[in-house]
Amino acid sequence: MCGIFGIYSFERINVAKKIYYGLFALQHRGQEGAGIATSDGRNIHHYKNIGLVTDVFRDDVLQNLFGYIGIGHVRYSTTGGKAVENCQPFVVKSSFGNIAIAHNGDLVNSNELRMDLEKKGHIFTSSTDSEVIAQLLVRELLKTSDKIEAIKNTLKKLIGAYSLLIMFNDSLIAVRDPWGFKPLCIGRDDENIYISSEDCALTTLDAEFVKDLEPGEIIEIKDGGEISSYKLDFDVPEYMSIDVDVPSIYKGATTCMFEYVYFARPDSTIDGISVYKVRKRIGKILAKEHPVEADVVSPIPDSGVAFALGFSEGSKIPYYEGLIKNRYVGRTFILPSQNERELAVRLKLSPVKSVLEGKRVVLVDDSVVRGTTSRRIVNMVRKAGAKEVHLRIGSPKIISPCYYGIDMATKKELIASNKTEEEIGKKIGVESIGYLSLEGLIKAIGRKDLCLACITGKYPTDINFEKIAKRL
Amino acid sequence: MCGIFGIYSFERINVAKKIYYGLFALQHRGQEGAGIATSDGRNIHHYKNIGLVTDVFRDDVLQNLFGYIGIGHVRYSTTGGKAVENCQPFVVKSSFGNIAIAHNGDLVNSNELRMDLEKKGHIFTSSTDSEVIAQLLVRELLKTSDKIEAIKNTLKKLIGAYSLLIMFNDSLIAVRDPWGFKPLCIGRDDENIYISSEDCALTTLDAEFVKDLEPGEIIEIKDGGEISSYKLDFDVPEYMSIDVDVPSIYKGATTCMFEYVYFARPDSTIDGISVYKVRKRIGKILAKEHPVEADVVSPIPDSGVAFALGFSEGSKIPYYEGLIKNRYVGRTFILPSQNERELAVRLKLSPVKSVLEGKRVVLVDDSVVRGTTSRRIVNMVRKAGAKEVHLRIGSPKIISPCYYGIDMATKKELIASNKTEEEIGKKIGVESIGYLSLEGLIKAIGRKDLCLACITGKYPTDINFEKIAKRL
Amino acid sequence: MCGIFGIYSFERINVAKKIYYGLFALQHRGQEGAGIATSDGRNIHHYKNIGLVTDVFRDDVLQNLFGYIGIGHVRYSTTGGKAVENCQPFVVKSSFGNIAIAHNGDLVNSNELRMDLEKKGHIFTSSTDSEVIAQLLVRELLKTSDKIEAIKNTLKKLIGAYSLLIMFNDSLIAVRDPWGFKPLCIGRDDENIYISSEDCALTTLDAEFVKDLEPGEIIEIKDGGEISSYKLDFDVPEYMSIDVDVPSIYKGATTCMFEYVYFARPDSTIDGISVYKVRKRIGKILAKEHPVEADVVSPIPDSGVAFALGFSEGSKIPYYEGLIKNRYVGRTFILPSQNERELAVRLKLSPVKSVLEGKRVVLVDDSVVRGTTSRRIVNMVRKAGAKEVHLRIGSPKIISPCYYGIDMATKKELIASNKTEEEIGKKIGVESIGYLSLEGLIKAIGRKDLCLACITGKYPTDINFEKIAKRL
Amino acid sequence: MCGIFGIYSFERINVAKKIYYGLFALQHRGQEGAGIATSDGRNIHHYKNIGLVTDVFRDDVLQNLFGYIGIGHVRYSTTGGKAVENCQPFVVKSSFGNIAIAHNGDLVNSNELRMDLEKKGHIFTSSTDSEVIAQLLVRELLKTSDKIEAIKNTLKKLIGAYSLLIMFNDSLIAVRDPWGFKPLCIGRDDENIYISSEDCALTTLDAEFVKDLEPGEIIEIKDGGEISSYKLDFDVPEYMSIDVDVPSIYKGATTCMFEYVYFARPDSTIDGISVYKVRKRIGKILAKEHPVEADVVSPIPDSGVAFALGFSEGSKIPYYEGLIKNRYVGRTFILPSQNERELAVRLKLSPVKSVLEGKRVVLVDDSVVRGTTSRRIVNMVRKAGAKEVHLRIGSPKIISPCYYGIDMATKKELIASNKTEEEIGKKIGVESIGYLSLEGLIKAIGRKDLCLACITGKYPTDINFEKIAKRL
Ligand SMILES: Nc1ncnc2c1ncn2[C@@H]1O[C@H](COP(=O)(O)OP(=O)(O)O)[C@@H](O)[C@H]1O
Ligand SMILES: Nc1ncnc2c1ncn2[C@@H]1O[C@H](COP(=O)(O)OP(=O)(O)O)[C@@H](O)[C@H]1O
Ligand SMILES: Nc1ncnc2c1ncn2[C@@H]1O[C@H](COP(=O)(O)OP(=O)(O)O)[C@@H](O)[C@H]1O
Ligand SMILES: Nc1ncnc2c1ncn2[C@@H]1O[C@H](COP(=O)(O)OP(=O)(O)O)[C@@H](O)[C@H]1O
Ligand code: SF4
Ligand code: SF4
Ligand code: SF4
Ligand code: SF4
Ligand SMILES: [Mg+2]
Ligand SMILES: [Mg+2]
Ligand SMILES: [Mg+2]
Ligand SMILES: [Mg+2]
Repeated sequence: MCGIFGIYSFERINVAKKIYYGLFALQHRGQEGAGIATSDGRNIHHYKNIGLVTDVFRDDVLQNLFGYIGIGHVRYSTTGGKAVENCQPFVVKSSFGNIAIAHNGDLVNSNELRMDLEKKGHIFTSSTDSEVIAQLLVRELLKTSDKIEAIKNTLKKLIGAYSLLIMFNDSLIAVRDPWGFKPLCIGRDDENIYISSEDCALTTLDAEFVKDLEPGEIIEIKDGGEISSYKLDFDVPEYMSIDVDVPSIYKGATTCMFEYVYFARPDSTIDGISVYKVRKRIGKILAKEHPVEADVVSPIPDSGVAFALGFSEGSKIPYYEGLIKNRYVGRTFILPSQNERELAVRLKLSPVKSVLEGKRVVLVDDSVVRGTTSRRIVNMVRKAGAKEVHLRIGSPKIISPCYYGIDMATKKELIASNKTEEEIGKKIGVESIGYLSLEGLIKAIGRKDLCLACITGKYPTDINFEKIAKRL
Repeated sequence: MCGIFGIYSFERINVAKKIYYGLFALQHRGQEGAGIATSDGRNIHHYKNIGLVTDVFRDDVLQNLFGYIGIGHVRYSTTGGKAVENCQPFVVKSSFGNIAIAHNGDLVNSNELRMDLEKKGHIFTSSTDSEVIAQLLVRELLKTSDKIEAIKNTLKKLIGAYSLLIMFNDSLIAVRDPWGFKPLCIGRDDENIYISSEDCALTTLDAEFVKDLEPGEIIEIKDGGEISSYKLDFDVPEYMSIDVDVPSIYKGATTCMFEYVYFARPDSTIDGISVYKVRKRIGKILAKEHPVEADVVSPIPDSGVAFALGFSEGSKIPYYEGLIKNRYVGRTFILPSQNERELAVRLKLSPVKSVLEGKRVVLVDDSVVRGTTSRRIVNMVRKAGAKEVHLRIGSPKIISPCYYGIDMATKKELIASNKTEEEIGKKIGVESIGYLSLEGLIKAIGRKDLCLACITGKYPTDINFEKIAKRL
Repeated sequence: MCGIFGIYSFERINVAKKIYYGLFALQHRGQEGAGIATSDGRNIHHYKNIGLVTDVFRDDVLQNLFGYIGIGHVRYSTTGGKAVENCQPFVVKSSFGNIAIAHNGDLVNSNELRMDLEKKGHIFTSSTDSEVIAQLLVRELLKTSDKIEAIKNTLKKLIGAYSLLIMFNDSLIAVRDPWGFKPLCIGRDDENIYISSEDCALTTLDAEFVKDLEPGEIIEIKDGGEISSYKLDFDVPEYMSIDVDVPSIYKGATTCMFEYVYFARPDSTIDGISVYKVRKRIGKILAKEHPVEADVVSPIPDSGVAFALGFSEGSKIPYYEGLIKNRYVGRTFILPSQNERELAVRLKLSPVKSVLEGKRVVLVDDSVVRGTTSRRIVNMVRKAGAKEVHLRIGSPKIISPCYYGIDMATKKELIASNKTEEEIGKKIGVESIGYLSLEGLIKAIGRKDLCLACITGKYPTDINFEKIAKRL
Repeated sequence: MCGIFGIYSFERINVAKKIYYGLFALQHRGQEGAGIATSDGRNIHHYKNIGLVTDVFRDDVLQNLFGYIGIGHVRYSTTGGKAVENCQPFVVKSSFGNIAIAHNGDLVNSNELRMDLEKKGHIFTSSTDSEVIAQLLVRELLKTSDKIEAIKNTLKKLIGAYSLLIMFNDSLIAVRDPWGFKPLCIGRDDENIYISSEDCALTTLDAEFVKDLEPGEIIEIKDGGEISSYKLDFDVPEYMSIDVDVPSIYKGATTCMFEYVYFARPDSTIDGISVYKVRKRIGKILAKEHPVEADVVSPIPDSGVAFALGFSEGSKIPYYEGLIKNRYVGRTFILPSQNERELAVRLKLSPVKSVLEGKRVVLVDDSVVRGTTSRRIVNMVRKAGAKEVHLRIGSPKIISPCYYGIDMATKKELIASNKTEEEIGKKIGVESIGYLSLEGLIKAIGRKDLCLACITGKYPTDINFEKIAKRL
């Protein structure tokens, strides 16, 4: 997934520390690596490494990142190997000076673009899309002296999800792809313009929210903090028509529904829609769609919390925390051995016996993580005394992989793809299971210009499956 | 506060890794340092250091901690300097072989005992109570060959809070002080006996809960996993009589009420009473004691969550999470500078605008942390659009310091000591404020054999204030 | 300067650990960073970082560097900023598979090449010559399918010093530039072919020395350990004719004299000439060229040791170690503050009073490091009781910068450029000073095909000073 | 062995950083751990850890070690386990305030003293002699208010080697044991009094050497830098009479001969005798005692250097460095596997072929380290082309263990104990071998008040072998 954050200080104050705090607020978007690049108007300084924001940056490192323009990146952990080369921002020296790029999303045609470039003699030092974009951009810059023109020409070649920050020595450019897959918004205060994946980072820095970038919008921030907006004219192909009675925000856009359901922070607002409210509404709808007689509604924390609160509201079944998540989870620790998998679950989640004992319990979560983990949780809940366990899932079944940046492999969602709900419920060992309907999802989000590909199998872009396969 | 955890494997399997996981589950009881000591029957091995459990122990360190008996400790961060010497278990060589001690609580007379011992020529390498206890114990062991006798004679000298683990080369002893200040319980499975500060760690290790130690109870675990129980005959002086219609669990005991209100993990059960349920009941009573017209009840997370849920249940005002706590808080990070104090609060807590906007909000927490922090949170909530802010506190005003192991100085509670509720509310800037009543607290907990000293100023033990002052 | 080391195991055994030991033996050639890249025939694995070989590599890192072909690099500390990007080997993905390059030396025209490439749309992620070479190479590979042809075409564009290791997925290529500036040699044992900057690393690994690469020689090692040798036809321009009666080893070559005098390890043999013996001969000649009445000859360790032994032999003045070098120097330590510069010198070097007291002392070293340091050493020697101090230098005055990879700026040699020997001696505060003559130097080395540019100001290649200046 | 270093700044300037530099200069005396304790007149601050001085201390740690009095310690690596508890200074709180102790040497009766104390109820947290001394001292301080009196009473109980630094809140005391086993000297400058194991650390800090402490001397430094000297009246039993015509420095003393031969830094002067000169004289005498026809004399560096120079002077055989020691040895690195033992030797030492080829070589070292290592070195020298190899050893055969602080186990000298010189030579594989004679050793050192126990088996103190055995 990744998170990106940029600042342009028109008061020319060093921005590295503010970017550090912004990335800290976006840490949930990626825990594998972090990086910051800053420009002092002449040179680009940068530092990146494997690890959490707080591990990667120490005070002395930040203090050496001079400059009043800066961009930062938190990298999502993918199944591929960890390597500092794949951390971002990607920084290059070119005949147009230094360029730094930070990218959130996944290009569907990056493999083709990469092979094309390689055939023209370009070489690659990383496996990031940012490097592909950088190479394309520099080629376009050779053709036209107009930066925005060159960027537009570059972007027209890209298919897939990209929220981008591009930093030149003296300007900062932000782009949201024409499909509007990933969020990106602008904020400001008296001294700075901010660009952030989610507005929660603006709140952290006490910046005022200005607006979400529109799909296909290019924002340029230059000297004095002047902001210009451009529009990429790119015809997004028609996506499947959805027959639910809610409006579109951006005509033709296909914003990732999973940002609302799972990925974004609950206190964020994406394209004007509160993530927290979406989740509560989902819970409420779920209660209507899959009612059950029960004593207690409990979330699987943290993702299930808002759903469960909504479910409780909708069902009038009282909400209790039947599972406590250990707050020190997330730190690297000595793993239990292979045959202690249950311990691994108990180290993360702990049942509150007094809440569960003798009760008919509704467990709510965003999705079914690997059947086995869910089964272990259900077991644990039963062992703590629950009489019945009912599972409610805040999204429809995920049946198809995502090619736009969310690693479904890690979420191992695809268990649902070839099983009926009943079979899944049986496997997990619950009295009943209920998934949110597609219509319910769209209504809860309240917009229909959504990507729903992982649920429906219909992709808003062409997918060259053969090329993608090759690259793996 | 500290947390302690011990294992005796009567199957003679190495216990270090299990202790590691137990301490991980008790991490909330102390984040400053951690240590483990193990005995292989002949020698004691140990390792301790500053930092979280996951930082202190690496696999190779654990693998060198041989032994089938072991005790561990997580150290509470106090205002005093960090030093590895003050980490526990405290391990000594004596004429009776090696002894390791882990202690949770604070002795009121440790300074006197220490000075006494120093006058007799003893020296101290740390400022822990464990070292005082070790010295006393060795002196008693010189007088009698009966270990339990010697331990009893030692304990009779101690005034204050102590939940203790004492490990000899070939046995493990657990003690809970006669007042029962701090919790301590026993668990078991097919291969091990466990002793833990809270039963949540038993759950993590899938051990069966056996019982809480009674105040003044001494448990000895020896070869083959045989458990013997002894009783320290020690007359606890009469504490203040409480005229609330709830029973006592242990006659004459004074268990710390703050364990229920704030310190213990919500999924723990202390002396048969569920912490989570106490907190929910507190919220409900609070709703009755300080009703308010409002649109939304929101906790200050994490401590306020269960109170707020109870308040919502009691008041019928809907529960929403108006503040999100950044889950990466707790890691060492580069602090904002002095004049960015508000940023420090926003890095930890973030308002959910969509929940707060235009609403009359009830904020619920366990206690008023330094007026200034509360004021900043209230400001933030208002800035996010709240029309009114009402503060409800899940405990009575804290007016007196704790001498039994909870560092009120760090909680800076004493703001309440010389101000009326109104003054406090004004200082914080809320429309109304309401503290739980003493009676409400006792009812919610459901037992009256409690220490309430920090609320009432009446201490269950003698306190030699002069000596304590000297020691600071 | 840098050091490079490569292995091809025709028994297909992992080579990473052996490369680690090879780099350890070449550590004196560069202390700023280290890296290893290995190929398992299909993929290239690599790891590099700032720091000494022993700091950069841990066992688990080495164990993940699979592959039977491998190259390693130790990076010389330059005045430029430290950055992991500038560590080598430089690894790229191209349409011809992965390529890894390690380079020792400095190209004189890299800036021009770089600008050329940038104009063609290439971008750079580092400031290494390796990246320039990689880009050129990939362009040539597009034109011809013959690897050696492409390499030759690439090399013809390079002016300056380059000892190169190029690793493809399934082959290893070694190159020494046509001037033969930097050393490079081949070794072998029953299972591997080795390429090393100095033969001391072959000795460490108990490999048999095979031969030095000739200037302009290209070695290719392929399947089964077969070695092919190619010759780059490139006309090196005529260098200044030297009228000293010693032979050339390679006609027209200009091997760096400083490798013999200072840079290489004393136990290495370069192009058939023992470094240790050269240094001893220098000392002897120096004794003839600048005789002095004295009681003791003492080196400034370590560089002065062999010179001083030769001087003693030549002059019959007894050799004593008047200065001891602290063997823990080289580790990062807390530096003395600005006004404790003398302490910095004393932390490194310590006088042996019993040797110096009341004596007329000849101090011998390879060159005059910053006047100030020398003055401090001389002061220290005097303070220890020396009656007279005479300085003898094992090389002629360095008057011109090196553009081939030795950072004269760090050696601050250029003090000599605008001062007479007398003035220098006065500044340093010695009774007499004596530099080796140019003729003496050539005789001591015993070959005349040497680069002497930093001594004479006459460079064996064209130098585009303007371009070089721009790049700084 | 260990090294100790203390400072009293009568100008009341913080001394921690100066102690750090002093310990850096004494690092050769112990590489396992390091520590510093400082007193600001009221409190003692301290920090110690496993590792080299440069690894243990970072700037922020040093900056927190406030105080104008301070002592430091470098710990010798012993075969026992590494544990921070065994690092020194040992710091305790007692009824007499804080006390910090740093100790160099080994008490012969520490085990008895320890058991005595344990029987009296004392406990021990480390296995250091310092802790034993601290406990005894505090007991004596209870009996008399006169500090020096108490120290004297304590010291009278100690048998064995001890050079001690004892720091109270407001004074610094230095002691050298009545046998004078280990060196200890005083220095001063305008602001500080220094105490150091060797004077090389005084030179590093540019302090003036004042005097060596005499055996049995107690030095007290108090307010204003006033120095008082006391004499411990303790009758050292008569040691074996040595019939060599050299004087004693301190009548009845038994200073460790090994300090001169191996342990101390060559630039140090112990009890007025230059270590470097002793070593050169040893070489000269060795040349007379074991003459040989040869072409080259070469040291096994570093210990053999001065001997070899002396041998060359005595024999007129030219001195060459036939072996180069890798200067990065000493850093923790990834060890060769078991069956690569020869590699381990080659990583440390490298032959200079050009020096050895075709030559009859005399190798000189201080002692025979484990037969196997020597054999490997000799092999290596032969493989490099040496025609003959003759070994000369700068000390007599070591046949008996040292109980005064030098871990002969690590030096594995005892190979010599049950073999004739010829047998040893055969095992190592040399043409001839020659050990220095006892008389030669004493003459070279130039004093006869030496401990020679490890050579002769006659110990200057009673040794309770049974007790020592028990303790192992
Ligand atoms: N600070 C936060 N507070 C509450 N929820 C958060 C926070 N940050 C991220 N989240 C949410 O946490 C969820 C993921 O956490 P969780 O469910 O505990 O982990 P997992 O991905 O292992 O199931 C996401 O839904 C995300 O929106
Ligand atoms: N894993 C957990 N999940 C929920 N609450 C927890 C957990 N561990 C500890 N707690 C509770 O968290 C509270 C303290 O956290 P919090 O309020 O966020 O911090 P602070 O002490 O800074 O106010 C305590 O009341 C404790 O009972
Ligand atoms: N292991 C070694 N033993 C002896 N000399 C070495 C070794 N490694 C490198 N050298 C030599 O050491 C010299 C550099 O060290 P030195 O003079 O101490 O440092 P500096 O560069 O600070 O003057 C070079 O001449 C090099 O040839
Ligand atoms: N800075 C120094 N320069 C030269 N010799 C030293 C220095 N420091 C310690 N020594 C000497 O080095 C010797 C030990 O080093 P060495 O022989 O290389 O190691 P080993 O103990 O492994 O044989 C001792 O004789 C000691 O006196
Ligand atoms: S496929 Fe699913 S996860 Fe991927 S962008 Fe579309 S909705 Fe989001
Ligand atoms: S004084 Fe308060 S915090 Fe301390 S033990 Fe008593 S109730 Fe608990
Ligand atoms: S200029 Fe000097 S240092 Fe550089 S290559 Fe030539 S001889 Fe060597
Ligand atoms: S026994 Fe040997 S090493 Fe030990 S003190 Fe005596 S002379 Fe020194
Ligand atoms: Mg989840
Ligand atoms: Mg709280
Ligand atoms: Mg030098
Ligand atoms: Mg040696």
